[in-house]
Amino acid sequence: MYDDLKSEVCQANLELSKRGLVTYSWGNVSGIDRQNGVVAIKPSGVAYDQLTKDNIVLVDMEGKVVDGNLRPSSDTPTHLELYRAFEGIGGVCHTHSTYATMWAQACREIPCLGTTHADHFHGPVPVTDEMQADEIASDYELNTGRLIVRRFRELDALHLPVVLVANHGPFTWGSSPADAVQQAVILEQVAEMAYGTLMLNPGQGQISAALQAKHFLRKHGKDAYYGQENGE
Amino acid sequence: MYDDLKSEVCQANLELSKRGLVTYSWGNVSGIDRQNGVVAIKPSGVAYDQLTKDNIVLVDMEGKVVDGNLRPSSDTPTHLELYRAFEGIGGVCHTHSTYATMWAQACREIPCLGTTHADHFHGPVPVTDEMQADEIASDYELNTGRLIVRRFRELDALHLPVVLVANHGPFTWGSSPADAVQQAVILEQVAEMAYGTLMLNPGQGQISAALQAKHFLRKHGKDAYYGQENGE
Amino acid sequence: MYDDLKSEVCQANLELSKRGLVTYSWGNVSGIDRQNGVVAIKPSGVAYDQLTKDNIVLVDMEGKVVDGNLRPSSDTPTHLELYRAFEGIGGVCHTHSTYATMWAQACREIPCLGTTHADHFHGPVPVTDEMQADEIASDYELNTGRLIVRRFRELDALHLPVVLVANHGPFTWGSSPADAVQQAVILEQVAEMAYGTLMLNPGQGQISAALQAKHFLRKHGKDAYYGQENGE
Amino acid sequence: MYDDLKSEVCQANLELSKRGLVTYSWGNVSGIDRQNGVVAIKPSGVAYDQLTKDNIVLVDMEGKVVDGNLRPSSDTPTHLELYRAFEGIGGVCHTHSTYATMWAQACREIPCLGTTHADHFHGPVPVTDEMQADEIASDYELNTGRLIVRRFRELDALHLPVVLVANHGPFTWGSSPADAVQQAVILEQVAEMAYGTLMLNPGQGQISAALQAKHFLRKHGKDAYYGQENGE
Repeated sequence: MYDDLKSEVCQANLELSKRGLVTYSWGNVSGIDRQNGVVAIKPSGVAYDQLTKDNIVLVDMEGKVVDGNLRPSSDTPTHLELYRAFEGIGGVCHTHSTYATMWAQACREIPCLGTTHADHFHGPVPVTDEMQADEIASDYELNTGRLIVRRFRELDALHLPVVLVANHGPFTWGSSPADAVQQAVILEQVAEMAYGTLMLNPGQGQISAALQAKHFLRKHGKDAYYGQENGE
Repeated sequence: MYDDLKSEVCQANLELSKRGLVTYSWGNVSGIDRQNGVVAIKPSGVAYDQLTKDNIVLVDMEGKVVDGNLRPSSDTPTHLELYRAFEGIGGVCHTHSTYATMWAQACREIPCLGTTHADHFHGPVPVTDEMQADEIASDYELNTGRLIVRRFRELDALHLPVVLVANHGPFTWGSSPADAVQQAVILEQVAEMAYGTLMLNPGQGQISAALQAKHFLRKHGKDAYYGQENGE
Repeated sequence: MYDDLKSEVCQANLELSKRGLVTYSWGNVSGIDRQNGVVAIKPSGVAYDQLTKDNIVLVDMEGKVVDGNLRPSSDTPTHLELYRAFEGIGGVCHTHSTYATMWAQACREIPCLGTTHADHFHGPVPVTDEMQADEIASDYELNTGRLIVRRFRELDALHLPVVLVANHGPFTWGSSPADAVQQAVILEQVAEMAYGTLMLNPGQGQISAALQAKHFLRKHGKDAYYGQENGE
Repeated sequence: MYDDLKSEVCQANLELSKRGLVTYSWGNVSGIDRQNGVVAIKPSGVAYDQLTKDNIVLVDMEGKVVDGNLRPSSDTPTHLELYRAFEGIGGVCHTHSTYATMWAQACREIPCLGTTHADHFHGPVPVTDEMQADEIASDYELNTGRLIVRRFRELDALHLPVVLVANHGPFTWGSSPADAVQQAVILEQVAEMAYGTLMLNPGQGQISAALQAKHFLRKHGKDAYYGQENGE
């Protein structure tokens, strides 16, 4: 049951490992079947070299396991909160990738310093508020999701599919589990380039709004002309 | 038709990927047949692991597709402008390689800080002006080419086959597609070394004109004596 | 004799090499059989590609060789001191891994700047005092062990299985040789992230005590709920 | 003729490439047969993947080719000057490895900031003077060698087998071509660690003379006790 979804989620998790974004069992990817309200996610604490389609866990929208012998990722409540809030998304990904985590730990948003960033993310990569003691004390993972959603109150999650949780690391999402992983790979590259840019020129400001819009719209929306599938 | 050119361009694009200078479908290499006014270039948005000789696109000097079922790279007008302006070149390469892009995003030229740089590039690696809103609004990719050409008004493109487009990333060129890629690899290495040099010694100035000339002329021109082919 | 222990220690040493934490013959891992008071350790100066189970050396708690034709690691007295002081540990690991060594050479403890750190280490990674001339002059390696133990007088070695020896590099330990190596891998990652965090934000302080405790206790102790084995 | 020497030099050059210290044809290693006054060296401009024992070039102590169809490395006069000045050495190596070159370009010596450095190099890694215009104008490569030798007037080349040529990069040497390459690998690692140490703590001073001596003498001289071959 849900074989394709499990397979897709398993492949996306393995891709994280292949791309060098995770160490040991860190990180997790999920995917959703919106019609049936079912989410497939990596089991907790399982190393990538032992991950197969058959130990992917299925949970319902309240986080109850509906299939699988293992516990789901401890970050499952965060994923579910994102699926509830961002209706257009099909996959969620969480890593502790090196450069994105540096920015998250520094509690700094990543400014849009170049076209690599503008090609993929429409605006600076936001960082959440720091979590308060009472939010940590109970429902920690759910509150992590709420923190993200709160940060996006005035942002468009579909055009900015990435966030840095302060003191923690990145979450990304996309149309599918594979797409969510791709955003994580791009975020890591953008984070590294932005790091070096500010080392070379600490006062460097964001690129112009015109250049940001131009690059984002080359790749997204009805007038996109990058790639083989967009535009008429 | 143009089988050798397509093959050469395909190989050069794959080399970019093998050398770790590109992520996903980013970057592109082209080559020119000057006699027939035909340019072969990577198709837009195609990932390197799916690239074969047969999906390389041929365009004429106005950018019209003359062979191939796919759209050419969206950066094609930039390549064409460089071929028109720099008559001695046979290949053009564009990447978002990590360290070269950091410098481009920092809008700083790379000073000649050592003999590795001097061996290959005759002078600092120039950075273009930032693009104006009207240049972005229409013919953006063509204007990117014009920006580069303008920056080279008083520079010798054959002895300095590299440029940083401000807020964007590097373009390189050479006698062939493979040579253009080689310049991109060397630029990335030079950019990383220059980065670290300035971290260790922010006030470090360029090496002497005498040392710059010595190293460049060891490898280039009629009195070159590096390698097996130069000299009398 | 002690075949399993030798095998375990050999595998753990090879894992160090596979994870890229060591160059040439640098670094060493040991394991202990507490019942018999026997420690298995890497031979001195042997490169990892020549290491087999059969050249692992067995020593007693005074460092006398009880099995093996090679000399044990010159750091053996440090390992023995740690086994004597920290009764709950089963393996010890020493490396000169790049980022952890940078911190050790800078004589700075690694503050807890994020949840990656908090997940694994309960508090900042401590750095020892610098060694005095008389401690260097005789019993240097034993004194290195004593220096570490002194630093842990008020720390819990089981919840903080890592230390930076000032001017030198990291030692880590764990329930087994494999666990000690895993702590070394995690420490290197944490050290790199902390480095970049402080480059981006030199004034960044530690995360809150509440967040530190939350993450550590997600993975450790009776209320842990990360992974498949913890909890009720 | 000189088959063993050629083979040894070829292997050492290939090791440079395998260790990631060179790009394209950069860098070169030589070895000497002191009895016959013959030096074997990499041919100029040949890429590592095309290097075989048979294209290693033999020259005499004046740099005249005595065997081989290719030109020797353009750096041959530097190597010969080192062999003449440092009588105990059997191999010389030159690279543009990333971190060592950063220090050379920054014209800064590498202070002894930790035991990794002290284990291998007896004192800071020296940097030469910058070269004067007249030294560049003629006999450039020979003058590079003289610059190094001048820097070692009061240093012991056998205990400090590494130097940074200002504005250029490292030269290393050793008892054999393989040993010279090993010093280059260690220098690169030491250079990277020292770089990060000073980023974390710009005022960090050298480790004590006592600690420097202790580590160097653990591995070198009659009282050495590291490894399997030293000591009584």
